[in-house]
Amino acid sequence: MTLEEKASLCSGRDFWSTRPIERLEIPSVFMTDGPHGLRKATGTDFTNSVPATCFPTAAGLASSWNPELLHEMGIALGEECQANNVQFLLGPGVNMKRSPLGGRNFEYFSEDPILAGKMAAALINGLQSQGVGASLKHFAANNQEFERLSNNSVIDERTLHEIYLPAFEIAVKEAQPWTVMCSYNKLNGTYASENNLLLDSILRKQWGFKGFVVSDWGAVSNRVAGINAGLDLEMPGNGGLNDKKIVAAVNSGQISKERLDEVVTQIVAQLLKTHELHKEGATYDKDKHHELARKVSSECAVLLKNSNNILPLDKSKKIALIGNFAKAPRYQGAGSSQVNPTRIANVYDALSKTATVSFATGYTADATTDAKLIAEAQEQAKNSQIAVVVAGLPDTYESEGFDRSNMDMPEAFNTLIEAVAKVQPNVVVVLMNGSAVAMPWAGKVKGIIECWLGGQAGGEALADILTGKVNPSGKLSESFAVKLEDTPSYLNFPGRDGTTIYGEGIFIGYRYYDKKKVAPLFPFGFGLSYTTFAYTGMDISKGAASDTDHVKVSVKVKNTGKAAGKEVVQLYVQDENKTIIRPEKELKHFAKVSLQPGEETTVSFELSYRDFAYYSEKVHSWQTSNGKYNILAGGSSADLPLHRSLDITATNVLYAPLTRNSLLKEFAQHPKGKAVYAKLMESMGSMFGAGNSTEKLTPAQEDARKKMQAMMMAILNEMPVSKLVSMGGGKFTDQMLDEMLLQVQ
Amino acid sequence: MTLEEKASLCSGRDFWSTRPIERLEIPSVFMTDGPHGLRKATGTDFTNSVPATCFPTAAGLASSWNPELLHEMGIALGEECQANNVQFLLGPGVNMKRSPLGGRNFEYFSEDPILAGKMAAALINGLQSQGVGASLKHFAANNQEFERLSNNSVIDERTLHEIYLPAFEIAVKEAQPWTVMCSYNKLNGTYASENNLLLDSILRKQWGFKGFVVSDWGAVSNRVAGINAGLDLEMPGNGGLNDKKIVAAVNSGQISKERLDEVVTQIVAQLLKTHELHKEGATYDKDKHHELARKVSSECAVLLKNSNNILPLDKSKKIALIGNFAKAPRYQGAGSSQVNPTRIANVYDALSKTATVSFATGYTADATTDAKLIAEAQEQAKNSQIAVVVAGLPDTYESEGFDRSNMDMPEAFNTLIEAVAKVQPNVVVVLMNGSAVAMPWAGKVKGIIECWLGGQAGGEALADILTGKVNPSGKLSESFAVKLEDTPSYLNFPGRDGTTIYGEGIFIGYRYYDKKKVAPLFPFGFGLSYTTFAYTGMDISKGAASDTDHVKVSVKVKNTGKAAGKEVVQLYVQDENKTIIRPEKELKHFAKVSLQPGEETTVSFELSYRDFAYYSEKVHSWQTSNGKYNILAGGSSADLPLHRSLDITATNVLYAPLTRNSLLKEFAQHPKGKAVYAKLMESMGSMFGAGNSTEKLTPAQEDARKKMQAMMMAILNEMPVSKLVSMGGGKFTDQMLDEMLLQVQ
Repeated sequence: MTLEEKASLCSGRDFWSTRPIERLEIPSVFMTDGPHGLRKATGTDFTNSVPATCFPTAAGLASSWNPELLHEMGIALGEECQANNVQFLLGPGVNMKRSPLGGRNFEYFSEDPILAGKMAAALINGLQSQGVGASLKHFAANNQEFERLSNNSVIDERTLHEIYLPAFEIAVKEAQPWTVMCSYNKLNGTYASENNLLLDSILRKQWGFKGFVVSDWGAVSNRVAGINAGLDLEMPGNGGLNDKKIVAAVNSGQISKERLDEVVTQIVAQLLKTHELHKEGATYDKDKHHELARKVSSECAVLLKNSNNILPLDKSKKIALIGNFAKAPRYQGAGSSQVNPTRIANVYDALSKTATVSFATGYTADATTDAKLIAEAQEQAKNSQIAVVVAGLPDTYESEGFDRSNMDMPEAFNTLIEAVAKVQPNVVVVLMNGSAVAMPWAGKVKGIIECWLGGQAGGEALADILTGKVNPSGKLSESFAVKLEDTPSYLNFPGRDGTTIYGEGIFIGYRYYDKKKVAPLFPFGFGLSYTTFAYTGMDISKGAASDTDHVKVSVKVKNTGKAAGKEVVQLYVQDENKTIIRPEKELKHFAKVSLQPGEETTVSFELSYRDFAYYSEKVHSWQTSNGKYNILAGGSSADLPLHRSLDITATNVLYAPLTRNSLLKEFAQHPKGKAVYAKLMESMGSMFGAGNSTEKLTPAQEDARKKMQAMMMAILNEMPVSKLVSMGGGKFTDQMLDEMLLQVQ
Repeated sequence: MTLEEKASLCSGRDFWSTRPIERLEIPSVFMTDGPHGLRKATGTDFTNSVPATCFPTAAGLASSWNPELLHEMGIALGEECQANNVQFLLGPGVNMKRSPLGGRNFEYFSEDPILAGKMAAALINGLQSQGVGASLKHFAANNQEFERLSNNSVIDERTLHEIYLPAFEIAVKEAQPWTVMCSYNKLNGTYASENNLLLDSILRKQWGFKGFVVSDWGAVSNRVAGINAGLDLEMPGNGGLNDKKIVAAVNSGQISKERLDEVVTQIVAQLLKTHELHKEGATYDKDKHHELARKVSSECAVLLKNSNNILPLDKSKKIALIGNFAKAPRYQGAGSSQVNPTRIANVYDALSKTATVSFATGYTADATTDAKLIAEAQEQAKNSQIAVVVAGLPDTYESEGFDRSNMDMPEAFNTLIEAVAKVQPNVVVVLMNGSAVAMPWAGKVKGIIECWLGGQAGGEALADILTGKVNPSGKLSESFAVKLEDTPSYLNFPGRDGTTIYGEGIFIGYRYYDKKKVAPLFPFGFGLSYTTFAYTGMDISKGAASDTDHVKVSVKVKNTGKAAGKEVVQLYVQDENKTIIRPEKELKHFAKVSLQPGEETTVSFELSYRDFAYYSEKVHSWQTSNGKYNILAGGSSADLPLHRSLDITATNVLYAPLTRNSLLKEFAQHPKGKAVYAKLMESMGSMFGAGNSTEKLTPAQEDARKKMQAMMMAILNEMPVSKLVSMGGGKFTDQMLDEMLLQVQ
């Protein structure tokens, strides 16, 4: 392969396909936007693409807490790709929801990295089982739309590793996506597309990623720097401009031949693989996929409120269905992920098949209302026994490309709900939106269902839930705050002057609400069912363990109601050791179980090192602290009835090297520093003049001296060792310091 | 002067005095710890020093909101220094209170930079009028005790300039302290003692500081780097070790001769000045200073609650005084500022002179209690008509050297208050503490007085307040949160792994409670009086102004009660323009006025540029935004009955240079970029293929196209201009970009 041929493989042929080299039988492959359906563009704008099944978007998917379901959906997506000759589907996206305002939140899974990572891994495994590559995105720290092409995300090392990377890490380790897509933004000053720490040190070296890294469309800034940092494929094509730069850089030695060979090898390996796995003439069953979309959608919906068991609806009663979304549903988000659905179901049609339903539009397609529409809605509500108001967010409120400006639904929606609740005591609100909204009327209605963006079959899935054909089993994949001011990143979102400081650090989502003792409107992991579940016991395989041991925890849960249902058993770990600031608790494992009335089951989890560890910036690695940890389990982050405790002994302890800037207390803690510290303390008395007194002291003087010594010790212990020189008044020399440091290397 | 002589002047002779050069008649001068009194050490430990008047500490001083009073106190401090042959008093400290837990908060003024700066300037002006130099400290970003010798404060540029620097800036510009003391900590990775940005660019070049910079005792890490960065004098003496390094560095060219001469000139100028201004044989009147301390202390106390006008005490009633602090008051903080007072007054003795007072100790000197002490206290309370419980924080709870671990008073104190309130409906709680505490019992008592650390005459001042001899006029210089979790820096205090991220940014103190809509227990600027004040009108000299105009605002306030009293008129500015994230409002001016019953006065303020400006990181300077500003005035940050609005036209607008990384919208806004932007937009259509269509569109298609174009424009506008190359598919070249950039230089 010539240098020019190699360089040509480093970027696309056009917007969606890679460059072939016919002479070497290297094929061109096709990539399309993704995550919740195939968007194979047929033109240059977003509105034309081949019809494909539109599944619920990721916010909903994660609320199913059902990886098996996502695996199934991944298979279906793979089948559609094969049928359309697509080799790579550009998704899923696992970025954390730092703020409910993030314009692209609907495309992302969660505020929790474990939930997001597990869901992504399942989807990827399903997709790739069909011979179609996933592109895990947007790597990394891309958590807002505002100035997303240039914004600098400033994130401390610990927060990056504990919050913003683990979802990627889990997906890479458990599903090995064939490509990873780097994001547009900068991370701590360096573009993700040129970020060696992200693309090489972490992704490849630490996590063992084997595929190629592709740029988000247009994310390349300096192509040569990108190649050296670990970016492989540039998309879209650049008309050959950057190929020339690559050739020149290899010739001048700016890019090593080895690095270019690595890039080409990584790209070509995936091209050949997908080409080989292509199933010529494949088709898929549109009806079956629509039914799958319906099943998925019905597992995503979260029942948030159900006073007096108003749900499932009594089908013998007259039901007023109110709101334009009931006939023209909001079912997916705007932007690059916008699928051209094979069909669209709405809840009005679906519900009308089994119940007596009247309809009032309530608000216009533009999400406005007026006295006439309100009066009509009230009239219908009054004339019925139950009113179901369908609200949420319109397309214009959340989209790729911009962030929301507040957490509110359109005023028309809130007005409508309040107006209906005034005339009808039995109101159920159904929400179609991609991220948390404020619900000022929550106390005034009996039922609330969060449908998310439910995909093309969402209307039917909703009807299934409303009528009780399906028992709701979704749990919130993100916290719903009472008001925007309560949200973790409120003071720093979306940043300013080109920079976003992630000032809340590791405290995003429920980690924040827990720590700050701020009650959310609905907590992470929360969701009701038409049946009830009782948590009846927890077993733990040991009460004490080393941090590298595996600990088995089993949880018993029972369906204590009258309907069959599914429950999401959530397991959180709480570090009681107060030596390091940590979240009150963190989700570590979960499992969704299906139980018949009266049925009990035992769910087992295995806890290991990372379940207890935090990321230490001092040693740039995961560490545990010695002490007590609580294992908590239950059906919501805010309701964890089962708990057992566990004593962890840290064995895998790393120490930062001792330098002239190390504190004396760091010498005391360090295996090599201990002896030096002890010797130093011995000599400290004579050096600083204390302890020389031979006079007899009164008890009060003794006491005063002891207090003084304790304070001096505290100050000494937090002193960088180099201060012995500057504070020693000439008695401790640089030479003495150097000798001391030699002893601890 | 020889090089060695010059070097010798760069550090102290010993712990407290500078090196003389007798041959050149350069004197040695003496420095002592300070701010609220003179601590002229007579030995090496903190407990021995010459007797001096102990005034209230800074937390209390700032609550007087009375710069004239601080000027008077500064004069008294100067007199004591002169009498003790002290040339420099090491204070005041103007660091911001980022957390109520800061161990040294009692020594600092406020959470607001304007209040802190004005109070410091007044004190310095008073002190220096007596020929004694102040040492403004600790410069800068030293807001915690934990690992204070090494901790790295990570603060974004805007926050630094808006929050952590202005108090220093005001004090430097309005009082020109003869020395500034650099702090121990690092700021954004560089020790304050080696921080050129702080010590030279900002302090000298921007603010015009003329004195010398002295290291906090032991703050020097790399002496040579310090000299080059702008640090002048090293304290304490280093036994000559660093002098040798300075000589070597000058010889090797590492330090320029000019820089060393500058250092020496700056130091010697102050040494000669203070030496010259020394008043040999000066004395001061201890009684008069004690009386001044009493007056100051009584203006510091803040009346937080006064239900049913329980205060002033009805002296005809039997009063139970409860709590060990009533006889053994907490009146100052521990650490380097600890003064050896000339005498100590306590409230029991003072109050007994004018009222019938019984006493119960309530808790021990160690702040513990038991059933017997509680029973005694309850007995006394029951047998009296009013109970005054004296509580607060013991020495062991707040001190230089460590931070508090929570906001709570000792459990014994809270238990005692609750127990007394159970048996006596008329309870007044008096608090002696250096920083905000939680008050879980606040709803159960009728009166609360915050005395702060009231100095040696605090007991008498408190009696003056309790009996109504003095009408309380203090206002909180810091917000009192309901609970620690509500405080602004809670998630990031005091940091970890050697680093503290100031994640709350500009939102400290009331700026945070306002923005987050979290109600504090008692808000900043709040304080009651035994009389009432009415705000009766505001005048503003113009309704529209350019940002460089001066605008006069006058406020009318009237004493509408029956007692003479003092009111603090506070003026806040609110930016209604939402283009930049700003605090809801910021204190800009204040004035304390004294009014007889029925008397009305007009207070005038002049607003100018900085009162409207924010610090822009883009142009590294203060900027205003165009639009509406509200001027708010009243007697508390949470109660501002007067308001007028003002339209500001920004004239002093700076633009960051346009580069390849500038966004297209930045071209559109930039005077030089506008034309280029317009031209670019014109050509954009043909470049990206839009607008070429000649086919007739249906209205729906037109609409869809318009929406698409709007979205494309939004995306384009946030695009760095360099992306035109990477996204242009070869149609826009690097050469075209370079030419475009040439046009805007």
